[in-house]
Amino acid sequence: MKIAFVGLGNMGSPMARNLLRHGHSLVVFDVVQRNVDALTAAGAMAATSVRAAAATAELVITMLPSSPHVKTVYLGDDGVLAGVPSGIPLIDSSTIDPHSAREVAAAAAAHGNPMADAPVSGGTGGAETATLTFMVGAEPAVFDRIKPLLAQMGKNIVYCGNSGTGQVAKICNNMLLGISMIGVAEAMNLGAALGIEPKILAGVINTSSGRCWSSDTYNPYPGVLDNAPAARGYSGGFGTDLMLKDLGLATDAAKQARQPVTLGAAAQQLYQIWSAHGAGGQDFSSIINLLKGCE
Amino acid sequence: MKIAFVGLGNMGSPMARNLLRHGHSLVVFDVVQRNVDALTAAGAMAATSVRAAAATAELVITMLPSSPHVKTVYLGDDGVLAGVPSGIPLIDSSTIDPHSAREVAAAAAAHGNPMADAPVSGGTGGAETATLTFMVGAEPAVFDRIKPLLAQMGKNIVYCGNSGTGQVAKICNNMLLGISMIGVAEAMNLGAALGIEPKILAGVINTSSGRCWSSDTYNPYPGVLDNAPAARGYSGGFGTDLMLKDLGLATDAAKQARQPVTLGAAAQQLYQIWSAHGAGGQDFSSIINLLKGCE
Amino acid sequence: MKIAFVGLGNMGSPMARNLLRHGHSLVVFDVVQRNVDALTAAGAMAATSVRAAAATAELVITMLPSSPHVKTVYLGDDGVLAGVPSGIPLIDSSTIDPHSAREVAAAAAAHGNPMADAPVSGGTGGAETATLTFMVGAEPAVFDRIKPLLAQMGKNIVYCGNSGTGQVAKICNNMLLGISMIGVAEAMNLGAALGIEPKILAGVINTSSGRCWSSDTYNPYPGVLDNAPAARGYSGGFGTDLMLKDLGLATDAAKQARQPVTLGAAAQQLYQIWSAHGAGGQDFSSIINLLKGCE
Amino acid sequence: MKIAFVGLGNMGSPMARNLLRHGHSLVVFDVVQRNVDALTAAGAMAATSVRAAAATAELVITMLPSSPHVKTVYLGDDGVLAGVPSGIPLIDSSTIDPHSAREVAAAAAAHGNPMADAPVSGGTGGAETATLTFMVGAEPAVFDRIKPLLAQMGKNIVYCGNSGTGQVAKICNNMLLGISMIGVAEAMNLGAALGIEPKILAGVINTSSGRCWSSDTYNPYPGVLDNAPAARGYSGGFGTDLMLKDLGLATDAAKQARQPVTLGAAAQQLYQIWSAHGAGGQDFSSIINLLKGCE
Repeated sequence: MKIAFVGLGNMGSPMARNLLRHGHSLVVFDVVQRNVDALTAAGAMAATSVRAAAATAELVITMLPSSPHVKTVYLGDDGVLAGVPSGIPLIDSSTIDPHSAREVAAAAAAHGNPMADAPVSGGTGGAETATLTFMVGAEPAVFDRIKPLLAQMGKNIVYCGNSGTGQVAKICNNMLLGISMIGVAEAMNLGAALGIEPKILAGVINTSSGRCWSSDTYNPYPGVLDNAPAARGYSGGFGTDLMLKDLGLATDAAKQARQPVTLGAAAQQLYQIWSAHGAGGQDFSSIINLLKGCE
Repeated sequence: MKIAFVGLGNMGSPMARNLLRHGHSLVVFDVVQRNVDALTAAGAMAATSVRAAAATAELVITMLPSSPHVKTVYLGDDGVLAGVPSGIPLIDSSTIDPHSAREVAAAAAAHGNPMADAPVSGGTGGAETATLTFMVGAEPAVFDRIKPLLAQMGKNIVYCGNSGTGQVAKICNNMLLGISMIGVAEAMNLGAALGIEPKILAGVINTSSGRCWSSDTYNPYPGVLDNAPAARGYSGGFGTDLMLKDLGLATDAAKQARQPVTLGAAAQQLYQIWSAHGAGGQDFSSIINLLKGCE
Repeated sequence: MKIAFVGLGNMGSPMARNLLRHGHSLVVFDVVQRNVDALTAAGAMAATSVRAAAATAELVITMLPSSPHVKTVYLGDDGVLAGVPSGIPLIDSSTIDPHSAREVAAAAAAHGNPMADAPVSGGTGGAETATLTFMVGAEPAVFDRIKPLLAQMGKNIVYCGNSGTGQVAKICNNMLLGISMIGVAEAMNLGAALGIEPKILAGVINTSSGRCWSSDTYNPYPGVLDNAPAARGYSGGFGTDLMLKDLGLATDAAKQARQPVTLGAAAQQLYQIWSAHGAGGQDFSSIINLLKGCE
Repeated sequence: MKIAFVGLGNMGSPMARNLLRHGHSLVVFDVVQRNVDALTAAGAMAATSVRAAAATAELVITMLPSSPHVKTVYLGDDGVLAGVPSGIPLIDSSTIDPHSAREVAAAAAAHGNPMADAPVSGGTGGAETATLTFMVGAEPAVFDRIKPLLAQMGKNIVYCGNSGTGQVAKICNNMLLGISMIGVAEAMNLGAALGIEPKILAGVINTSSGRCWSSDTYNPYPGVLDNAPAARGYSGGFGTDLMLKDLGLATDAAKQARQPVTLGAAAQQLYQIWSAHGAGGQDFSSIINLLKGCE
């Protein structure tokens, strides 16, 4: 299939490579020339604009940092809708606010293009190994049409409902993740301060009602899990500032929906404090050190 | 074995009955005569005081509502230590603060009695079906000695470390539970307000990084799980006021240990607001209604 | 002076009337015809568009509900900048985010028009009695030029610095107000629950380090002050939803500035819960009832 | 008058000296010999025990660090009630929980001694210059009797109601203070980040609805006030750990009273984080640096 791929950053680049590996023909675009060069070296063609990339594609995929980028790339004078023929399906894998996702999808629909929001989880590792989870908001028929393609870049392709619901699922899940990580950090710190062996405490929690991914798969307390970021000084993983971005999307959407998210907002503020102390680039589980204090 | 059992409330009574079922000889005591009568009708002997109950027992078990009760029952003039022969093992299954648990255990040790703190989770249902989880703080040898007996009242008998660590494990786990339940409630409410089907959202979360017991086993959003309290108007289950008690123990212990528990304290306040609005007797997952507001 | 006045709602209308009273000639515009009619009956002229109103004015004042309205009114095809001659000063008294205020002011400057952001406090009562406080962000020379006119609608005309700082002052003050009101509510509730006479407690606080406007001028506890909203069932005053709007502006601006506002965000969530329970139209000091619970 | 004074720490010592200055005869006791020596050098007599000090006094005053000390000093075998003749008035100026204050006062009443709880604010500076504020909980007649004496150690002698209400007033005021200080810190930080001059912002707040002692008298932003702790690197003043103690008393009392104090608890956690980062000895207004982060 001839695919236009726009946005070749840390996530987009390995995703595009997986499509190349499956034999697709790719026309790519990115504002950073170096990113484009790396993909053309791998077999993709470079387009001179988003519009040009979209003009000859049978499908368009975008992976962009934020909502204003998505709006410009789709709705701008040189953007996707200015070039793409009617009927071609569009997939945006950026993580943005549901409202903007729906706005762009409505513009695409008006132009005759079915559009899916398909944000991912799994990080750069998942992008490279094609084990991402895609949370997809689209008409059921569109979902059926694009699912095989998404399966070439990911492992779990989850249908979330109509337009925007992919983004909704992503920000709701990540808000809960941001909360439960702090909850685990507090429980582990408290237990250790009160004299229980952290590994034993994690074992109790992981077989009890406190059980959660943040404890059994990504425990923030050093020494509990060998392969969690806590075991390597909180490098790699999912950065504090990325968690902050998602919590910002969630609390913004909650404000629009007039829906209280008390712990979500509290978590956002704690990560913001932690980021203000220089930890924005560390894995988000390092928040345990904000709460533990210094010796 | 001849066992003294003190405290025959909603939890203690079915636990004692399970011991009777296993052929033990029970001497029981409770301040409520009706509770005593029910047990003697089932085959137990009634003692005139805690002291008397302890005087002839080969093992003592207590199940009491709070730390002052535990201190009185063990350390009082008419209490366990006043009557029990040296060498007899003591098991306290009450949920109390770790500091008091250690204080009583130290007094028992000075008297020549090995003591275990063994708080439970699993509720009255678990007590009746002998499927409780026991979190046990004791010397390893004491744990080995009492484990078979605990296994007659529960399914998971977890060793947590020396004296007090059973209580530590319990309050750390339950603090995390109290936090993650509110996190799930916020995520589900937000998702529903933004237009995703709650069952679909729960499905996404349960296979993603937001996965937790509060979502996959006890989801607070009505219609997601058939057998959670949300499916029966939040009756039964683990009451808001019981969660408040455990969060109070956790934040108190954190204060003593000078350990921040920001979300734990925020959760405590939200359940307190909810209790102040009359929901203390509802299952704690009903907190979702505080956050959802009225129609 | 010939003044164009755009936005004749609960605040704008009495402000415009005060200008009429001082002998100015007013050209007015509002999307609600009834609002326009009321002003023309009082001596103003009606314009057919914002552009038309601005075209012949010596000064333009706007009082609008939110940032998108301000952008449309100033930057739209039929807006202020499309009609106003270069050199005419522009005053926006809406409460909006500082970023948008600066964006519009920059567009005005590029068009040759000095612009001031001049949000107010004092409510509809202050608008009627011309006792508003204006917080003004503008070049010093512009401030000097417009100050006499603002003084015809308000009592305190405060210079806050260059463009946008009027909005900054407003949202920072109101965020603090939203926090301290909850603080006072908690302190008064707690004191009353612990047995001190509320009036006595307020008296102690008002002469101690807890002293604040929310306690000494607007105490939320019924019976403490005769003329506070608490004395009239929390009717009138500054509505919960208006406080929510300002807290939303503050936490949004804080997010952009990457500045933690932990209690500001917590306050926002509590008012959001309270609004979700139907109290959006009550004075914001009614938040005390969320915390007090029911009998 | 012959006065027994027990507790000669940073606060008690200068208070006792003021009584000496007014010509009273003092019998003093403290567990630290050095503290006793300093007072005897100033003219006081040393007692060998609290009991002995109380035995010959016409009035007893105590100034102790916490509730267990107060219970021991009054109710212990060698304590005040063991020695003091019936009818002698007792004054406890310690800051402790209202429940313990009432418990001790009830024991004193049973012994025939009227007792007042009279915690102070004003710090060591106020103790030295006899400008403390006393918040007094006692029978009205007892208050009238002891007021002249308290006026020799303080400037404002405030009647708060019956037994315990002095403590209630103190912890409610200080909880509000702890909240509003963080509120001011957040507002000042946010304003500065958004480009308003901090002194100007403080000026706006101090004449608006955000006005409070934490802003107009003790502003935490450096450069706003010349004589606040912020002007001297947050040395001196009221330490973070002392604020933590009072917030702990407030949230404990709130828990007993089942009264939500959401921002009070959030403030406690923030100061706890700050203390865990080594700032327990700095003035509590240094919390602004936790929120500001590093450069």
